[in-house]
Amino acid sequence: MKVTVWNENRHEQKNPEVRAVYPEGIHSAIAGFLAEAGYDARTATLDEPEHGLTEEVLNSTDVLVWWGHIAHDEVRDEIVEKVKQRVLDGMGLVVLHSGHFSKIFKVLMGTSCDLKWREADEKERLWVINPAHPIANGLGEYIELEKEEMYGEHFDIPAPEELVFVSWFEGGEVFRSGCTYTRGKGKIFYFRPGHETYPTYHNKDIQKVITNGVAWAAPTGSVKPVYGNAKPLEAIAAK
Amino acid sequence: MKVTVWNENRHEQKNPEVRAVYPEGIHSAIAGFLAEAGYDARTATLDEPEHGLTEEVLNSTDVLVWWGHIAHDEVRDEIVEKVKQRVLDGMGLVVLHSGHFSKIFKVLMGTSCDLKWREADEKERLWVINPAHPIANGLGEYIELEKEEMYGEHFDIPAPEELVFVSWFEGGEVFRSGCTYTRGKGKIFYFRPGHETYPTYHNKDIQKVITNGVAWAAPTGSVKPVYGNAKPLEAIAAK
Amino acid sequence: MKVTVWNENRHEQKNPEVRAVYPEGIHSAIAGFLAEAGYDARTATLDEPEHGLTEEVLNSTDVLVWWGHIAHDEVRDEIVEKVKQRVLDGMGLVVLHSGHFSKIFKVLMGTSCDLKWREADEKERLWVINPAHPIANGLGEYIELEKEEMYGEHFDIPAPEELVFVSWFEGGEVFRSGCTYTRGKGKIFYFRPGHETYPTYHNKDIQKVITNGVAWAAPTGSVKPVYGNAKPLEAIAAK
Amino acid sequence: MKVTVWNENRHEQKNPEVRAVYPEGIHSAIAGFLAEAGYDARTATLDEPEHGLTEEVLNSTDVLVWWGHIAHDEVRDEIVEKVKQRVLDGMGLVVLHSGHFSKIFKVLMGTSCDLKWREADEKERLWVINPAHPIANGLGEYIELEKEEMYGEHFDIPAPEELVFVSWFEGGEVFRSGCTYTRGKGKIFYFRPGHETYPTYHNKDIQKVITNGVAWAAPTGSVKPVYGNAKPLEAIAAK
Repeated sequence: MKVTVWNENRHEQKNPEVRAVYPEGIHSAIAGFLAEAGYDARTATLDEPEHGLTEEVLNSTDVLVWWGHIAHDEVRDEIVEKVKQRVLDGMGLVVLHSGHFSKIFKVLMGTSCDLKWREADEKERLWVINPAHPIANGLGEYIELEKEEMYGEHFDIPAPEELVFVSWFEGGEVFRSGCTYTRGKGKIFYFRPGHETYPTYHNKDIQKVITNGVAWAAPTGSVKPVYGNAKPLEAIAAK
Repeated sequence: MKVTVWNENRHEQKNPEVRAVYPEGIHSAIAGFLAEAGYDARTATLDEPEHGLTEEVLNSTDVLVWWGHIAHDEVRDEIVEKVKQRVLDGMGLVVLHSGHFSKIFKVLMGTSCDLKWREADEKERLWVINPAHPIANGLGEYIELEKEEMYGEHFDIPAPEELVFVSWFEGGEVFRSGCTYTRGKGKIFYFRPGHETYPTYHNKDIQKVITNGVAWAAPTGSVKPVYGNAKPLEAIAAK
Repeated sequence: MKVTVWNENRHEQKNPEVRAVYPEGIHSAIAGFLAEAGYDARTATLDEPEHGLTEEVLNSTDVLVWWGHIAHDEVRDEIVEKVKQRVLDGMGLVVLHSGHFSKIFKVLMGTSCDLKWREADEKERLWVINPAHPIANGLGEYIELEKEEMYGEHFDIPAPEELVFVSWFEGGEVFRSGCTYTRGKGKIFYFRPGHETYPTYHNKDIQKVITNGVAWAAPTGSVKPVYGNAKPLEAIAAK
Repeated sequence: MKVTVWNENRHEQKNPEVRAVYPEGIHSAIAGFLAEAGYDARTATLDEPEHGLTEEVLNSTDVLVWWGHIAHDEVRDEIVEKVKQRVLDGMGLVVLHSGHFSKIFKVLMGTSCDLKWREADEKERLWVINPAHPIANGLGEYIELEKEEMYGEHFDIPAPEELVFVSWFEGGEVFRSGCTYTRGKGKIFYFRPGHETYPTYHNKDIQKVITNGVAWAAPTGSVKPVYGNAKPLEAIAAK
């Protein structure tokens, strides 16, 4: 399975605090544990030509992982359109944390994807709501993160097809933290944690969820449907 | 309740066959039975200024009914954006038949909304799949239409939150004909039948479904959520 | 609309603390605010003949509200079976708090309906997750209860068709607090709060939710489906 | 993966027509192609001690496949209860055809599971509604069966979590033919075709669906949740 981990890779360039946590960028950290899990994992970043997402890269990607935050607007619309088309054609998509506001996630959801947020070094506890789900495979009853950014409801997304995690926050909010969707032949997993100043992607349970999420989002299913004008399969009386 | 029935109103201008079925346009036929049902129903059409959907009209519309087909591309993007925002803010939306390919439906769904189709004067039977649903109120087990255009699966939409009808077609296909969604504070009902050359909107059961659909899609719910940076509701230890 | 509020009415008999909060029983408190909201509300309790749920009562009930806790086992199986059949035939059912472990809820869900719990006078905050839902009508972003019993995930229920509320608890847990289901022609709403020692059912927002829930669960929909052997509606070639 | 294929195995004993199609029983036919697909597949039948479903067998079964029809009532309640408990604990369950009326399926669904039916040698066409679903893996747009028993809507089941197939029948009906559910930690797949007098389970596409269904239903997920009284994870002010 071929996984491409996309990152806007801007905080890492500007902020030494972030660089201290992810010296080679969030994308490399994620691609690292995915490679250890046995995937063929590569990376792509905003400032590469075509944001690193050429047709060749997209067409050979089974699952795309997306991290973006301060540069959503710099992602070119025609690239977003190509990514969307690849998702509808079957490529899996794992959207992380602040990717909730990425163009690609918003266009696939059809909503504002807005939420409440707060940076206050507070505790997050992600409860497993669906213990039968493959994305929760190998986890305990919850994942605890000592310090994370808060995201709170209302999260303006379509009702998830499957709700896997709900977060409790120290400051009093809750959040639907693990949500799955299908769009066309593509499967989408949104996973909340991962603020750039915290070592969240070094956490073993978080790595397990993302690894499981990539496996879950892998292309599968029936042939690509045929659309448009169709001849009848049975005789029609009026003809 | 204020209902605005929008129609591109082009087939009626060009095609005497359509005009024979809907002498005052599909929009007037629909607004007519909605008014009889007690709604404050008005119409809007493509060739009016701002397509008849000024801010004043949109802001005073509780539920918008949408019929379009050959002129989807002529609907201006900024009007689509305004309609989308109104839906997210709570306005109901009832999308009919070929409206599956309208800009507003596609942007709210996030998928291609493509399907199979055929014009062959064939029989359609819409089975009630969810007999507990208010949109099915007052119906029998199915609605039978002697002649309709066929729409067949795969219908490239997100899995409906509620599936109310599934159609059987004489030529061998099936179709998810009555689908509900929520986007933001707005409720959306897609209903399949209504090809312009057939008297479908004069059928009493079809009128009942659209009337029920408008009632179901009416604005309701809690206050508009507050988004963005949020102060904690509880003390945070790290602070 | 006729509403029957069922209560096992045992805590009120045994425990002066409960009687102080609900002098005429939880059932009378709930029936009281439902009557004020304009419903034809009556009560039924465990120790009445047939638990107050005779066929006459059931057949004339549009929505049944259920509160039980320490005497679930005393509810006779044949009454449970009758209530279940009435739900499948279209009667609405609103299950409150410890009713999660009632025979009627478990048999309609097909799961254990188990959960975590704790009595510790802790704060509960019920967040509105679906601000478009009629059950949330008229609410703010959340309901806050200063002291309640905690119910925590994992809650062993089928994934709700609609998730309306998620609770945050002071002690660190979350809970799916407002869940809707359809079974046959009947609509079911489970609502979490309401431990017998707290004045929860005197809270105006809680009353609003239960009142909305009763309205939402009211019988509607198409005719009762016909089951069993069916003659073909179309000619079959092999015949 | 260990799969147990359960069959009541009565038609095969009584009816030479069925024996001609399945000389070693439906269970052996199904276990045969599952073994070819690489599963550790065994069989169990009604007339074995404990219906072949001893605790040892159940505890070592990852996925149970169920076919029953004329002898549902002979399945002992305590065995049904054990199977249910194993499903809630994580064992997958694939229910075939007339198994819709089995005790185990009804108790897990909470509804009557009733439907329309007709034996008339008619054509069935199962359309793939969710082409992204792993249960549809490797299929074309539909499966066509020249002669099958008809099952028609309304099918009295809870709304499926995922709807994979919808059937078209020659006689004019439709049916939700492939439905998934989760109950506790267990995953359930209902698949419609398989009347005993037709060679349906010899059809390669039908075999593919059942093989995919078994893979999909395999146990996965997080640890078994802890239920009951729970100590707080955070300090509670009132204490």
